[in-house]
Amino acid sequence: MRRAIALALEGVSGNQGGPFGAVIVKDGVIVGESFNRVLATNDPTAHAEVGAIRAACRKLGTFELHGCELYTSCEPCPMCLAAAYWARLDRVHYACERADAARAGFDDSLLYDEVAKAMPERKLAFGQMLRDEGLAAFQAWLDKPDRTQY
Amino acid sequence: MRRAIALALEGVSGNQGGPFGAVIVKDGVIVGESFNRVLATNDPTAHAEVGAIRAACRKLGTFELHGCELYTSCEPCPMCLAAAYWARLDRVHYACERADAARAGFDDSLLYDEVAKAMPERKLAFGQMLRDEGLAAFQAWLDKPDRTQY
Repeated sequence: MRRAIALALEGVSGNQGGPFGAVIVKDGVIVGESFNRVLATNDPTAHAEVGAIRAACRKLGTFELHGCELYTSCEPCPMCLAAAYWARLDRVHYACERADAARAGFDDSLLYDEVAKAMPERKLAFGQMLRDEGLAAFQAWLDKPDRTQY
Repeated sequence: MRRAIALALEGVSGNQGGPFGAVIVKDGVIVGESFNRVLATNDPTAHAEVGAIRAACRKLGTFELHGCELYTSCEPCPMCLAAAYWARLDRVHYACERADAARAGFDDSLLYDEVAKAMPERKLAFGQMLRDEGLAAFQAWLDKPDRTQY
């Protein structure tokens, strides 16, 4: 965790992005790490946890991180939380909380509220179209004999 | 939307990843697009929407996509939904629903349930440590006179 916090501070001083750092550990060894790089890379998805997950997957050559644990300087936002599930991480350790992030001007807490809302209640507008045509993609997937389910 | 669905089909036939495609449109012009590339890139965060957002930001040279709309072949998972908020998109158009994704074997619906739960109720284990040390990163951010809030 101290490495994750050091990364957060490094990212701030280097103008990389927000004050967040994350590390992925497997068997006691760091296999991926990142600070937030939203500003330096012009990428709103370049959060520390996403960066650390991507780095660990690159290093281990897999899209699943079973047996790995995430250490993050702040409770993950919903994007990074869902990324932790998709990566099949074993455990998440965090230092600060979403309320601490909110006090520093970040939307983490708001986003938890938004994700839990029904679509019509969200601040972001949603509209559905062409579902029948879209289902063809799922059918193509289910019809694919060599598909890799993940 | 038809382009997003075509991308989803292209991704399946090309063994890139799951059956999902997404497009970002600004002023009636596509400025970013992607299919899911989880399998081809060993990256669990390489969902179609994340890829399209990253491509649009790269093209437009910004980390905020005000004035842009997302067309996605399926309702975004919580990771991609939160990414849409972080990217400040104006609107989300989708074809299939999370239940359609669930029927094809994807965890989108489960993840919505998990994100909305209190930490102790989640399937993924959480633990807090070193909050006091972690707060130093937020303080460094707030003390930074030239910070770019996002």
